[in-house]
Amino acid sequence: MKQAQTQVQAVVWKDNALRLLDQRVLPREEKYLLLNQVHEVAQAIRDMVVRGAPAIGIAAAYGIVLAARARFVQSPQTWQQLVQQDLELLAASRPTAVNLFWAIERMRQRIPQIAGNPEQALLSEAKVIHEEDVAANQRMGELGAALIESPCGILTHCNTGSLATGGYGTALGVVRAAHAQGKARQVFADETRPWLQGARLTAWELVQDQIPVTLIVEGAAAHLMKQGKVGWVIVGSDRIAANGDVANKIGTYSLAVLARHHGVKFMVVAPASTVDMAIADGSQIPIEERATDEFLSLAGQRVAAPGAGAWNPAFDVTPAGLVDSIVTEYGVVRQPNAEKMAAMMKNAG
Amino acid sequence: MKQAQTQVQAVVWKDNALRLLDQRVLPREEKYLLLNQVHEVAQAIRDMVVRGAPAIGIAAAYGIVLAARARFVQSPQTWQQLVQQDLELLAASRPTAVNLFWAIERMRQRIPQIAGNPEQALLSEAKVIHEEDVAANQRMGELGAALIESPCGILTHCNTGSLATGGYGTALGVVRAAHAQGKARQVFADETRPWLQGARLTAWELVQDQIPVTLIVEGAAAHLMKQGKVGWVIVGSDRIAANGDVANKIGTYSLAVLARHHGVKFMVVAPASTVDMAIADGSQIPIEERATDEFLSLAGQRVAAPGAGAWNPAFDVTPAGLVDSIVTEYGVVRQPNAEKMAAMMKNAG
Repeated sequence: MKQAQTQVQAVVWKDNALRLLDQRVLPREEKYLLLNQVHEVAQAIRDMVVRGAPAIGIAAAYGIVLAARARFVQSPQTWQQLVQQDLELLAASRPTAVNLFWAIERMRQRIPQIAGNPEQALLSEAKVIHEEDVAANQRMGELGAALIESPCGILTHCNTGSLATGGYGTALGVVRAAHAQGKARQVFADETRPWLQGARLTAWELVQDQIPVTLIVEGAAAHLMKQGKVGWVIVGSDRIAANGDVANKIGTYSLAVLARHHGVKFMVVAPASTVDMAIADGSQIPIEERATDEFLSLAGQRVAAPGAGAWNPAFDVTPAGLVDSIVTEYGVVRQPNAEKMAAMMKNAG
Repeated sequence: MKQAQTQVQAVVWKDNALRLLDQRVLPREEKYLLLNQVHEVAQAIRDMVVRGAPAIGIAAAYGIVLAARARFVQSPQTWQQLVQQDLELLAASRPTAVNLFWAIERMRQRIPQIAGNPEQALLSEAKVIHEEDVAANQRMGELGAALIESPCGILTHCNTGSLATGGYGTALGVVRAAHAQGKARQVFADETRPWLQGARLTAWELVQDQIPVTLIVEGAAAHLMKQGKVGWVIVGSDRIAANGDVANKIGTYSLAVLARHHGVKFMVVAPASTVDMAIADGSQIPIEERATDEFLSLAGQRVAAPGAGAWNPAFDVTPAGLVDSIVTEYGVVRQPNAEKMAAMMKNAG
């Protein structure tokens, strides 16, 4: 089997500092921001310099390395207490993606085991989180592509590729693998309002990898499905509840309803770190509402009529009943429910 | 019953010339373009200086006045033959809205009856078309609002108000009437990609009329419906087939599927001039595909990654089976089908 590759790296640890590819200015500029302090990392997550649930988790893990370094210099005896507030700062940066809290928790558990300067031990852990994510993506790519029985059109939403993960991607990893196997007859991507992750980021990644992509506005997805041009909708997730309900970028739930109406299959691809077994169903997942200026203005210029109100939820929840398959690195859950999700997560250990 | 009013005028005949409110620059600028020649009118329709099916028809009618004036000066004997090519030019400006062809046809039928200078006779006919449209809108506003049994949230798409019609509006006329009657608990408007008619035009009109409006991105409509915040989706149309299939702005069909899934009612509001009894069903309605640059760039700046493809259909077709009510000035057709549409159009006479 041909292994699809990608060169894009959104989160890079180099020369003792964190570098984040600034996703706010892509594809116009390819610019890395250099971050040396944890509050800069929290701000970068909040401002969406880095976005995508797995990438946020990885960036936060490296952010904890920066935090521990500073706290150890400040107080070699009490850094383990002092650093807790930095973990809280990172945890408060975005509310919906559970990978953020998962990565922080994993790093937190290493802290009491460390004697002396913590930098190398925590950096090792952050790198393992990063490497495991890439490996998980590669595995999910294989598992997801195997679900596509015959070549068909694929529609994806938002950006779930190398820019949103440690590398390769979740849903976009499946698209990469499907393309490499000749199973992606045509790749469609929603432009993904308001932040245009599809037009700016997904298209950029796919063009770099020489995978042809056709952008559409969200409103055209139903019209596209009606014409029989889509066999699978493939999306990522920011949090999956114990029953298989899926929180993801606003517009995902709409695609799931439309897919069911048109007999199109719906696949969710996310690492096990996205599954939150502490949350029974999607109604309990906190949904971030972002500033309305994200779509009332464009390129710094007010677009909408002054005086108009707006509502800007960043995510929505797709009920498990509308999902055909959830793909994690531990396997595929078809027609997900609480029992099947629990069985899959048992493998996750 | 309180009669809702509006001051906005998109198409104005004044001082022997046509003035069009330039909808490409609203709400940033309120600027009227002065048009003295028919080719300027055709260009303005093509470039969406004026848009909205009824407004396009009215602008074309005034355009024929300008055409006849010039042709009569050119050749008082043969202007009636010469002007035919101007009618063809106007007819070629946009393909989907049938009101355009309807208005041209109505003006064309007046031409053989005219002796001498045609300007006043054709101007009278154009003004009648314009006035009839406003009256039809007022009537549809009453009929549509009467369908709303109890106060609820209303979601509309694109712009169907005074800017899209001779004045008052089709779907937005119903919103105005419902608001005046206290039946619109909250008015939501899709921003309406790619041209942002919702954010730029609908919001502007409603703010002017002091009707509170909440903008959403298209992707948020399903999430909004799931929360029970919408009782009715109310939209306009560019062409309705004999069986009740409805062509309208891209994204409308998506809303219809989502509305049905959530038990939300779906109303289409359009004058009888929008109904094309010569077309059996929606599959035969030509769907305009516009330049992909409409959404690959924003405010003149390329947004999407260079190399990405795109598909930009301007309209889609909603099957009659997903429509609860079609409202014209001749009455309401519930659960539309060919038989009921024919009966209603008989009244239209």
